[in-house]
Amino acid sequence: MQDRIDRVRAQMREAEMTAFLVSSLYHLRYLFGFTGSNGLGLITSDLCFFVTDWRYRDQAQAEVRNAEILIVRRDLLAALKEKQVLPDGCRLGFEAQHLSFGFFQQLQKNFEKIKFFSANHLIEKIAVAKSPDEIASLRRAGAMACAVWDQILPFIRRGVAESDIAAEIIYRSRKLGSEGEAFDPIVASGPRSALPHGRSTNRRLQSGEVVMIDYGCVVDGYASDVTRMIAIGEPPAKLREAHAAVKEACRLACEAARPGMEGIQLDEVARKYLASRGFKDEFNHSLGHGLGLDVHSLPRLGPESKDLISANAVVTIEPGLYFADLGGVRIEDDVLVTAAGNEVLTPMSRELFVVE
Amino acid sequence: MQDRIDRVRAQMREAEMTAFLVSSLYHLRYLFGFTGSNGLGLITSDLCFFVTDWRYRDQAQAEVRNAEILIVRRDLLAALKEKQVLPDGCRLGFEAQHLSFGFFQQLQKNFEKIKFFSANHLIEKIAVAKSPDEIASLRRAGAMACAVWDQILPFIRRGVAESDIAAEIIYRSRKLGSEGEAFDPIVASGPRSALPHGRSTNRRLQSGEVVMIDYGCVVDGYASDVTRMIAIGEPPAKLREAHAAVKEACRLACEAARPGMEGIQLDEVARKYLASRGFKDEFNHSLGHGLGLDVHSLPRLGPESKDLISANAVVTIEPGLYFADLGGVRIEDDVLVTAAGNEVLTPMSRELFVVE
Repeated sequence: MQDRIDRVRAQMREAEMTAFLVSSLYHLRYLFGFTGSNGLGLITSDLCFFVTDWRYRDQAQAEVRNAEILIVRRDLLAALKEKQVLPDGCRLGFEAQHLSFGFFQQLQKNFEKIKFFSANHLIEKIAVAKSPDEIASLRRAGAMACAVWDQILPFIRRGVAESDIAAEIIYRSRKLGSEGEAFDPIVASGPRSALPHGRSTNRRLQSGEVVMIDYGCVVDGYASDVTRMIAIGEPPAKLREAHAAVKEACRLACEAARPGMEGIQLDEVARKYLASRGFKDEFNHSLGHGLGLDVHSLPRLGPESKDLISANAVVTIEPGLYFADLGGVRIEDDVLVTAAGNEVLTPMSRELFVVE
Repeated sequence: MQDRIDRVRAQMREAEMTAFLVSSLYHLRYLFGFTGSNGLGLITSDLCFFVTDWRYRDQAQAEVRNAEILIVRRDLLAALKEKQVLPDGCRLGFEAQHLSFGFFQQLQKNFEKIKFFSANHLIEKIAVAKSPDEIASLRRAGAMACAVWDQILPFIRRGVAESDIAAEIIYRSRKLGSEGEAFDPIVASGPRSALPHGRSTNRRLQSGEVVMIDYGCVVDGYASDVTRMIAIGEPPAKLREAHAAVKEACRLACEAARPGMEGIQLDEVARKYLASRGFKDEFNHSLGHGLGLDVHSLPRLGPESKDLISANAVVTIEPGLYFADLGGVRIEDDVLVTAAGNEVLTPMSRELFVVE
């Protein structure tokens, strides 16, 4: 992890920051290894501090690398202030997107004579290119999602409730070793599948409809994120047609992924194909997003994204088509972009699974 | 829910706000009924707007009450700006603790001539006193946690992994109708039970140790939060002694809860009793917290809390004692404070459950 701190320092020098304050929990894990729920990191050109409250004393001692550990009863900022490494007039970078306005006010109060610099996405950008260790974890998280799918498929049939499917997904994931859920599983059946973010309800699966299932596992903190579609008997013809188009769009985008592309370029591969199949207005979200400790990270793949897809980035590819009152279709895979091309980390069939 | 908006407006008048911007997802649910993951509310003296992105179009139409619904492709603030209800020089209250600094900068850019007012805990304070509907949901969430306990108890024995217990808790909760987990279950065995926030690992339960189990169910968005202790065979004498003290401290504090008390007063009931039993330094966290849509809400019960415990508040009572390298003990119940006294919403035995 020391190399990550080195890369932060390179960014700090470039933006002429004296120090950088880390407040995102994902980034505290990424830089220092801490997995608790409260902490701050402070990086200067030659020092690193990690501060947390006493509840995490033992955990911090066991987990935290690359930083002097400070344990306080309550006031994390006061502990950093005491270290006196932020001289008057210095420039402190902070994570404007991960820090509440209220906390920023506390910062200002504690460090009155400091210039604050909103260093957005500094860590997110460093974290795009994954190390071999990270890739191994992401690969395991992807394989675990596939194993979960194999286990839940026999369970899905007419009459089962969406919420029961969600319960099975979580249970099987945990029993297979997932540390948690990448997000609460989306299980949306019938007309509800037209909701891109339909959480599960007690609605029961009926004949002649589809169910959208979107979930992810977590390994060493790293997430997978997959979506597959099941039909209960024969689905509406339009959704079958949409599924065929989405399946091909997903395949095309996965195969097209190369280092050096911008997010918009990969998005276009799927979007243009879907338009050519007559679906111009129904793909109403972005193609995908980076995967890492945070399930929604950089690079963004969307019609406005200039984010660079670098070698060793891992992204989701998730084209979808949605028809109000009828239903929707989405297929999602996780893809590692390599110097040589790409590798799908969720190698499972993209067919429309038909059950009774 | 209209009465909640009325109470917000009363607060707005008191603080001379022209309008109030709601950004916390919990508060969007509380005031408007929205359960999605992206949205903003704007309340003026006579108008209410709710804005979300197109992914939640159908969901917003189905869920949102008390507000004009605006659906946008991307920029929520632009949609609010177009409504032109914020004249130059007006005072806009916002949730400084729930809004990122980055988002605040966008706010400033969109509304250049407005005065911003950091209205912390405005909704939290209104939400302390629960309505009969909310109490019914909290009561069900508490009863569900008790039912989960009865179901997992037979499963817990020597050799079972912490993570398997966590998987069972989640699975049983979901099958009983829980909408999700109030938080990721804490299952901490042996020396790990000395970590107040020990997430589950693959560690297996051994004879002669205790395991701390802390979890909660969710009903209509409302959380329960309970902790119980299990011993695998005979635990260390010190932990048995600590358990007896914590059990009595929990009972005393639950019975002492009355409307009109401050958080510090209820905290003292447990803290003084534990000190009288010789545990002066081992109860190193607050006694509890308010329960609602957010599992950690007002009133706070702690040695520095002046928060008022009003009638129809629901709080956790969770004294604990922690001994590094040996283990820890915590017992937690949820208590409804009524005009007449109080009611424990998690009526289950506080005994040290001993299994083999």
